[in-house]
Amino acid sequence: MLHGHGDDGYRYGREFKANFSSNVWLPTRLEALRDHLFARFNCVTRYPEAAGESLESMIAEIQGVRVDNLLMCNGATAGIYTVAHALHGRRSTVVFPTFSEYEDACRVNGHALDFLQWDAFVAGAEPEGDVVWVCNPDNPTGAALSADWLRARIDGRPGKLWVIDQAYMDFCLEPALALKEVLTRPNLILVRSKTKRFGIPGLRLGYVAASAEHIRTLARFSPPWSLNVMAIEAGKFLLKDRFEPVLAEYLAETQRFRAALATIPGVEPLPTQTGYFLVRLPADRDSTQLKNDLIEQHDILIRDAANFRGLDHRYVRLATQKPEHNQLLVEALRAWMAE
Amino acid sequence: MLHGHGDDGYRYGREFKANFSSNVWLPTRLEALRDHLFARFNCVTRYPEAAGESLESMIAEIQGVRVDNLLMCNGATAGIYTVAHALHGRRSTVVFPTFSEYEDACRVNGHALDFLQWDAFVAGAEPEGDVVWVCNPDNPTGAALSADWLRARIDGRPGKLWVIDQAYMDFCLEPALALKEVLTRPNLILVRSKTKRFGIPGLRLGYVAASAEHIRTLARFSPPWSLNVMAIEAGKFLLKDRFEPVLAEYLAETQRFRAALATIPGVEPLPTQTGYFLVRLPADRDSTQLKNDLIEQHDILIRDAANFRGLDHRYVRLATQKPEHNQLLVEALRAWMAE
Repeated sequence: MLHGHGDDGYRYGREFKANFSSNVWLPTRLEALRDHLFARFNCVTRYPEAAGESLESMIAEIQGVRVDNLLMCNGATAGIYTVAHALHGRRSTVVFPTFSEYEDACRVNGHALDFLQWDAFVAGAEPEGDVVWVCNPDNPTGAALSADWLRARIDGRPGKLWVIDQAYMDFCLEPALALKEVLTRPNLILVRSKTKRFGIPGLRLGYVAASAEHIRTLARFSPPWSLNVMAIEAGKFLLKDRFEPVLAEYLAETQRFRAALATIPGVEPLPTQTGYFLVRLPADRDSTQLKNDLIEQHDILIRDAANFRGLDHRYVRLATQKPEHNQLLVEALRAWMAE
Repeated sequence: MLHGHGDDGYRYGREFKANFSSNVWLPTRLEALRDHLFARFNCVTRYPEAAGESLESMIAEIQGVRVDNLLMCNGATAGIYTVAHALHGRRSTVVFPTFSEYEDACRVNGHALDFLQWDAFVAGAEPEGDVVWVCNPDNPTGAALSADWLRARIDGRPGKLWVIDQAYMDFCLEPALALKEVLTRPNLILVRSKTKRFGIPGLRLGYVAASAEHIRTLARFSPPWSLNVMAIEAGKFLLKDRFEPVLAEYLAETQRFRAALATIPGVEPLPTQTGYFLVRLPADRDSTQLKNDLIEQHDILIRDAANFRGLDHRYVRLATQKPEHNQLLVEALRAWMAE
């Protein structure tokens, strides 16, 4: 695993006034979820279902797939590691800049690796690997490919295996490839996160969807009892819950936040289709210095994006927060740039 | 993963009057733990520490090792899979009968496998593999090796790598190999479960201890955020909590339970040093039939042990429960044997 992911506030031993470092949406209905789990707390005295079966069945029914098309995972990242493990020794192309764990998981499992820039991929460049890893919408950029465009690429290269990480699909108005697309595509593996959308990444809950044959193989690489009972119960509660946070409002605040940042001379917020985005600093400024100064002088945590392949010391990643917190950061960054 | 582990009551869609199928001790101070976790419920809105660092530090300090001797895992079974993965392609010997996941984890990672019977190992037979997997105390038998005896075997074969699963160490009066033994032994890997002892396996919490060099390698195969926030908080609470359940009482009830079972003609409870044990039925009886009949006729769940390597349709595994529940099973089994 990489050292230097976002949401690393615990390294500083304290809470922050505002935290822009993790791409998690605002938590919703947290009290209702807490009460639900609290009432079922005794389930911690039992082993979890070996493969999260009850939650898996609910997802299968809602999504129009079969349970043998699904593998429940201890967070989407565990799913990524399981896929890379099951495909050990293959030749993989990672479309970048992106989440670093595809590269790490492939490397440790002996994949031959190459890298294709997102813009080149979008312009039609062919991945060289026979396994292709795409994060859609992408992290850290917030760029998104349409389902139609991506499906055409996948169907145009049936001999390649496409691993599409949809962890951020709920942060974007662009519809994602539907889960049931795996039913007719033996060359497609989808990875999803269930806890990002509801703002509860602490519970760890994700899954992989693919043909039954792929899932049978993947399951051999996955230990039993990977999902804890709180994650299973939370997942079932959230699937039944009717609460739908209004994404359009969140994305409107994102654009307002970007526009405010763009008024700071030298600061360039990059385009995004999600609630998080990259900000480019002038070449004589340093992202790590900015992160540290914001912690020390303003009690604010951001994600230094210098350690993403393809980015450098000019980039930080911000996830939109409440308007008053976003305004705090705009003012702090304006002051820092004027120093 | 194997299908057919214990504690599989969820497959039957209901609760049981008594559950002997999982080797988990009686839950303790569950209400205090629940209140502690729910007072901290908001931590689910954050990513967990990437490697469970705060809990890892506490364990290191208590056990007299360094944090770089530890890898926190999503349950001990995830630790077993990570060790087998990091040692992919090695030649492994599994001392059996034992927990099936060593074999499964080694097989999926391309180990050359052989098997050595527990009794032969105890009698001095040499494992052929260069990696040796021993569960101590053993599951499903409840047999235990003394720390002195095991240390002598390990030190007598420094060229072999010994993986000792101590998941059940708290169920047995025989002292386990101390964690700090790894500090001077590059040929020793210890696997521990933190949630069995406190009866909360639903939360998933285990760890691996070894030399810093082994741990550095293992960590590359382990995804970030493997420990959920509830497991981290529960672990810290339980390490600080002064409550010590009285093992001697539990083991005394185990021996009383075994003695009562032994009065049933044809039923042979095997010796154990823990709170769980095997029961051997006559050759014309069937363990799967017994499990099903107990479910249907008596609302009782047991562990059919026929799928353990080295055992067959004559064996079931029982974990001691409350005296009144144990008595229910004695009466039910007496009636079944008389049919």
